[in-house]
Amino acid sequence: MTLKKKHPRESLVSMTELVLPNDTNTLSNLMGGRLMHWMDIVSAIAAQKHSNRVVVTASVDNISFRTPIQLGNVVTLKAKVTRAFNTSMEVRIEVEAEDIPSNVRVDSNLAYFTFVALDKEGRPTAVPEIEPETEDEKIQFDGALRRRQLRLILAQRMNPKDANELKSIFDIQT
Amino acid sequence: MTLKKKHPRESLVSMTELVLPNDTNTLSNLMGGRLMHWMDIVSAIAAQKHSNRVVVTASVDNISFRTPIQLGNVVTLKAKVTRAFNTSMEVRIEVEAEDIPSNVRVDSNLAYFTFVALDKEGRPTAVPEIEPETEDEKIQFDGALRRRQLRLILAQRMNPKDANELKSIFDIQT
Amino acid sequence: MTLKKKHPRESLVSMTELVLPNDTNTLSNLMGGRLMHWMDIVSAIAAQKHSNRVVVTASVDNISFRTPIQLGNVVTLKAKVTRAFNTSMEVRIEVEAEDIPSNVRVDSNLAYFTFVALDKEGRPTAVPEIEPETEDEKIQFDGALRRRQLRLILAQRMNPKDANELKSIFDIQT
Amino acid sequence: MTLKKKHPRESLVSMTELVLPNDTNTLSNLMGGRLMHWMDIVSAIAAQKHSNRVVVTASVDNISFRTPIQLGNVVTLKAKVTRAFNTSMEVRIEVEAEDIPSNVRVDSNLAYFTFVALDKEGRPTAVPEIEPETEDEKIQFDGALRRRQLRLILAQRMNPKDANELKSIFDIQT
Amino acid sequence: MTLKKKHPRESLVSMTELVLPNDTNTLSNLMGGRLMHWMDIVSAIAAQKHSNRVVVTASVDNISFRTPIQLGNVVTLKAKVTRAFNTSMEVRIEVEAEDIPSNVRVDSNLAYFTFVALDKEGRPTAVPEIEPETEDEKIQFDGALRRRQLRLILAQRMNPKDANELKSIFDIQT
Amino acid sequence: MTLKKKHPRESLVSMTELVLPNDTNTLSNLMGGRLMHWMDIVSAIAAQKHSNRVVVTASVDNISFRTPIQLGNVVTLKAKVTRAFNTSMEVRIEVEAEDIPSNVRVDSNLAYFTFVALDKEGRPTAVPEIEPETEDEKIQFDGALRRRQLRLILAQRMNPKDANELKSIFDIQT
Repeated sequence: MTLKKKHPRESLVSMTELVLPNDTNTLSNLMGGRLMHWMDIVSAIAAQKHSNRVVVTASVDNISFRTPIQLGNVVTLKAKVTRAFNTSMEVRIEVEAEDIPSNVRVDSNLAYFTFVALDKEGRPTAVPEIEPETEDEKIQFDGALRRRQLRLILAQRMNPKDANELKSIFDIQT
Repeated sequence: MTLKKKHPRESLVSMTELVLPNDTNTLSNLMGGRLMHWMDIVSAIAAQKHSNRVVVTASVDNISFRTPIQLGNVVTLKAKVTRAFNTSMEVRIEVEAEDIPSNVRVDSNLAYFTFVALDKEGRPTAVPEIEPETEDEKIQFDGALRRRQLRLILAQRMNPKDANELKSIFDIQT
Repeated sequence: MTLKKKHPRESLVSMTELVLPNDTNTLSNLMGGRLMHWMDIVSAIAAQKHSNRVVVTASVDNISFRTPIQLGNVVTLKAKVTRAFNTSMEVRIEVEAEDIPSNVRVDSNLAYFTFVALDKEGRPTAVPEIEPETEDEKIQFDGALRRRQLRLILAQRMNPKDANELKSIFDIQT
Repeated sequence: MTLKKKHPRESLVSMTELVLPNDTNTLSNLMGGRLMHWMDIVSAIAAQKHSNRVVVTASVDNISFRTPIQLGNVVTLKAKVTRAFNTSMEVRIEVEAEDIPSNVRVDSNLAYFTFVALDKEGRPTAVPEIEPETEDEKIQFDGALRRRQLRLILAQRMNPKDANELKSIFDIQT
Repeated sequence: MTLKKKHPRESLVSMTELVLPNDTNTLSNLMGGRLMHWMDIVSAIAAQKHSNRVVVTASVDNISFRTPIQLGNVVTLKAKVTRAFNTSMEVRIEVEAEDIPSNVRVDSNLAYFTFVALDKEGRPTAVPEIEPETEDEKIQFDGALRRRQLRLILAQRMNPKDANELKSIFDIQT
Repeated sequence: MTLKKKHPRESLVSMTELVLPNDTNTLSNLMGGRLMHWMDIVSAIAAQKHSNRVVVTASVDNISFRTPIQLGNVVTLKAKVTRAFNTSMEVRIEVEAEDIPSNVRVDSNLAYFTFVALDKEGRPTAVPEIEPETEDEKIQFDGALRRRQLRLILAQRMNPKDANELKSIFDIQT
């Protein structure tokens, strides 16, 4: 039986968090680890919505933290599934931080988490494929293949020579 | 004034956590986000020890989660600085999970976080260089350059053509 | 100086929470107090977005808890300002609970919180008026007057005889 | 079999909390949501003591927050059952905040929560009736009927015309 | 200036806590460390009430944990100052655990904590003396001297030969 | 069947914690109760490692808090089993606090916790004996007997006349 394809928007989840004292370091900046904890929760919910399954985090791609987020800021995390690969899903998370009284808003982070869907016995199970709709979703869908190859190479489960899509990142002639 | 070089072992930090109910998902497995939160704290302390400065998380490298960690397990995280680059430091974190009553122990994760040291005004400030001692430390010191190039390329701050060290990962002839 | 009117949608905030073990009672149901804590945070953010001010909770209207929410459920809270009264704002919060693996979703709660906006010295300060757009927003805007009279009577700050709008709830001939 | 009546004092519970950084907003005031969380716990315990049953929150009456409670204050919550209605109980909670070093104490809130008692299968089950003793308890016992009618009307489960006791709040001639 | 003496009952504090999942070990018993955390908070509040000062924990006497406290139990902690010694106070904490649905209540622990009162510059400052009223309070007041000698000996700040009151514990002829 | 003896170092556990805002009182000092909570977790893990059993806290010896630990400090707790007594184990915990940016480190606390090992039915069960190796471990092994007698006397389970080892603390001729 084939599962019906789903659109990225069907898994869209938005989460809002207020930065409290215990979330911050001695400079009153949000700690990176707390932000990753939130990213993991919001993206796990997106993956659950896509698959209607219990999911577990399989990997996290390189994340960079450019702008510090302050105590009292409101953090909005938006997650949606970009592409499914048999039993796994890539989720894209966009993070925005807002200092509401001074009306300043910053795009603070972009991250990709992957999840595996599990059946009731805890074994990996097939998930619906993704059918992208918007232009951005199509770009993210295509990029997912490249990011996946990088993940497999870094986990030493793929030979770099076979990573055809990835080569485009490195702009390499072969 | 040049800062005196330091050894990786001077920044070694060991942290032990007990997996409690609120750290787990509905399968009673430790959530990836909670583990990353712990990784961030232990590696920030290692970076502080190396630099004797307040530090902020700059980036997290690709992490993969292979084996589930269970409720009641004891998680041991060991972090040390592998290499310093002017104002930033790469920290390697090894995670081990243990089911003590059944005496089973697993190497569960390996991760690299980078931190920037800040002075009292919150500006990036120089940190001591690293002088590796053991064979493993030397390998990690060398690999740090390659991982840094990948980070810069992924953050679009380096042209892949200039990433000479990185090429070895991909085993590419030039 | 008059503040420019704003629309309810400009203050819309969506928050998603996963029900964890510590949020539940011995029946594995979400505790009412935890849900009210989340309601307070999401509605405070909506009031902040409308007023671009620090806000404090002034009152909470009668809330009823009809359907139990289970451990592992995903709770989505949506808040927006329905009407402003000089220095205070009424916020409407809709709560939905979802058991994602079994694909069951319930409208679980409806609540109204009011907030007062404060200036930098901590004194109440004027907020923009609300201009409702949709049919629902108009109904909520009109109802806000009635709910406000009930609040003032219950706080013994209004004589019930003067509560003209409220009388319609009680369907009373005068 | 009829359950033996019980007195309000048999369910009296006193709870003391210290306001910690994470309980406060950017003005260092206790957040309303955290206070409601504490109210829910203390009143649930009072309802458990009265019924010797597991209980679930059924509703919360209008609460107003008059005086801000500060970081470092000691908050004392006192709860007791005012009246029982077959399977449900109304609990009255009085909240007092104290700045101990400066010896200032304020009555900060008054709230009414209702709970339903459940048997082992999770079905509503009868609870003992209340026999008020003091003058205050008698007033609260009588008022409970009025508050209950308001709750039922607001939940659209009673026709306002039938709310005889409630009319006295509104001082309405019929 | 001499401070007016105060009675133990003036510092009496009662705190009620519900045992939640994260407070328990894998046997669903309350962890000793969580209970000590609650003991510290309730006794610090009692010491603050007696002294109207900020206080810091100076020491904790031997505590034994006889009966396990279960998940879902209600824990009541009662603290009051038994005796003051210049700038320090001994606080006695009685802990009772209750399984309300099965109506079982156990006296689970007895502990003594000592606190030092601090002035605004953070230096130890004099506190009022205690005037015991009841028979129990007199016994606890007398015993405080003996317990204090044991504390001083264990901290190696008193020579056991000078501990006259303590000798009675050991029933030693001199 | 006799269990094979184990060395103290086989149970050594090191735990590192960062002092966060919610761990501190209004003077920004770590609260004693939070520190005892950490001590309990680290020593329970040491006792688990020695016995490969689930363990419960049986008692805590007198602890004194000499030096305040500040917000932002790094606290390192090291625990190891000093001696086993049939089904129970004494664990010694050394606590060190560090202000890393100013490079100041203090030995802040020394504590002894005892634990009982439980089998799968929750009954006390035999644990391996301890064979001390270093000079310090031998001193701690010998002292354990004396500390145990004091515990038993304080819990009124031993007659002081029989506490031969303990007498040496009090330097008493008999």
